[in-house]
Amino acid sequence: MISVVLLGAGNVATHLYKAFSKAENVSVVQWYNRTHSSILSYVNEVDTTDNLEELKEADIYILAVSDDSIAQLSQDLPFENRLITHTSGSVAMHDLDKKNKISVFYPLQTFSAAADINITEVPICIEVYEKENRQILKDLAKAIGCKSHKISTEQRQSIHLAAVFLNNFTNQLYRIGHEICESNNLEFDIMKPLILETARKIQNMSPYMAQTGPAKRNDKKTIKRHLKQIESEEHKAIYKLLTASIKKTHKYNLPINSGQKKRNKQ
Amino acid sequence: MISVVLLGAGNVATHLYKAFSKAENVSVVQWYNRTHSSILSYVNEVDTTDNLEELKEADIYILAVSDDSIAQLSQDLPFENRLITHTSGSVAMHDLDKKNKISVFYPLQTFSAAADINITEVPICIEVYEKENRQILKDLAKAIGCKSHKISTEQRQSIHLAAVFLNNFTNQLYRIGHEICESNNLEFDIMKPLILETARKIQNMSPYMAQTGPAKRNDKKTIKRHLKQIESEEHKAIYKLLTASIKKTHKYNLPINSGQKKRNKQ
Repeated sequence: MISVVLLGAGNVATHLYKAFSKAENVSVVQWYNRTHSSILSYVNEVDTTDNLEELKEADIYILAVSDDSIAQLSQDLPFENRLITHTSGSVAMHDLDKKNKISVFYPLQTFSAAADINITEVPICIEVYEKENRQILKDLAKAIGCKSHKISTEQRQSIHLAAVFLNNFTNQLYRIGHEICESNNLEFDIMKPLILETARKIQNMSPYMAQTGPAKRNDKKTIKRHLKQIESEEHKAIYKLLTASIKKTHKYNLPINSGQKKRNKQ
Repeated sequence: MISVVLLGAGNVATHLYKAFSKAENVSVVQWYNRTHSSILSYVNEVDTTDNLEELKEADIYILAVSDDSIAQLSQDLPFENRLITHTSGSVAMHDLDKKNKISVFYPLQTFSAAADINITEVPICIEVYEKENRQILKDLAKAIGCKSHKISTEQRQSIHLAAVFLNNFTNQLYRIGHEICESNNLEFDIMKPLILETARKIQNMSPYMAQTGPAKRNDKKTIKRHLKQIESEEHKAIYKLLTASIKKTHKYNLPINSGQKKRNKQ
């Protein structure tokens, strides 16, 4: 049985709490939050506190708080030599106060309050300062059904950067698609199967192989018509930049004289 | 029973053929392709031909060929007054030769030879020149389990444009994530659950609500570190442009004085 004290009440903390309380081999001995009202609805199932001085003994203290609060909270902990871990993709492990044993337990996923998650599909990136603390963090990941990965600080920061492209920026493209639909009296719902299939497709195929469309085909006629169609200057700039990026990626893949052949066909 | 002649042997044609041959109320009476060898593996299950003069009678002739070939093929058809339809997202219906009854039957999805598709999840966009031809195309969509939508030429061209953002450009972001992983000795596999969840999330939530990350939070510290981390000038330009786009979308959503508060915290 791994005993855990959870600190913080944001989306990551809440999803972790739910996973831990379902797990057979994990006991959440206490849940701390600076603002007690945020965890008030859990008082009947777990010991809660807003006072760091009251923190109980546990195998692992999980600091699932905002990036900016991690360092300070680790300094404020009123004990030493215990295993503490943060859950951030971008904060350095060494930002944690070294009076305790420091580590990182980073669940690589997008967490929203409103969206349920299958936690077993979330990869956990583990980083430790002292080797001997790795196993218990691996066991904790395993206890909630997650795969864990040994990741360096640099790698974790690269993962976090990649996640911005794959999650935040992708979501902004969804937003732009939403805007295009709205301004043409189209329900965005009609686009949802395409969005899902685009993500599904690269589960078993490289993004390079999965690419299709006018930019990859270097279909100048369609690209020109699209640029004429786009009303927003901002969308136009994004269209141009990503079209250029696709062309660059696939440049050696164009059939020889494809431009010539297309002109002949018309 | 709806009888169909299918023309073309690309990804759309092949996926449609598979769906039609499984459907109870559809009969593929013939499959035409200019290059007979491409459909040679189907000769035991369907009548095939590479000769337009040999085309049989059918309720609908589906021109599932490349955008550039649609107009010419419709002119080359050796009959008149029959219902013909193309499957393109971007070609105008009026590019079809009007000696026949013209229409569009556009399946809004990304089709690859290597990726299986659940056809019942594909929305079909239907456009007709004469109203009376709409019903049989709706029935054809229904026969393969698809929802159909009455869509104008302009709307279809907007859908096609939105699809470039949601599919081609999103896939290029996956590609960039892949490149970031590779140059940091990380398996791209670790990012796949995030990619899938990003697409799943907006099935029940608007992209606006689903957004998270440094750009939305206007987290200048993280954005600056990311820009320092990115090696490729091209990736940097995409990072900047999409960060600016997210900021613009969410500008009214920033907590008042959030910049001030953050500076005080550090």
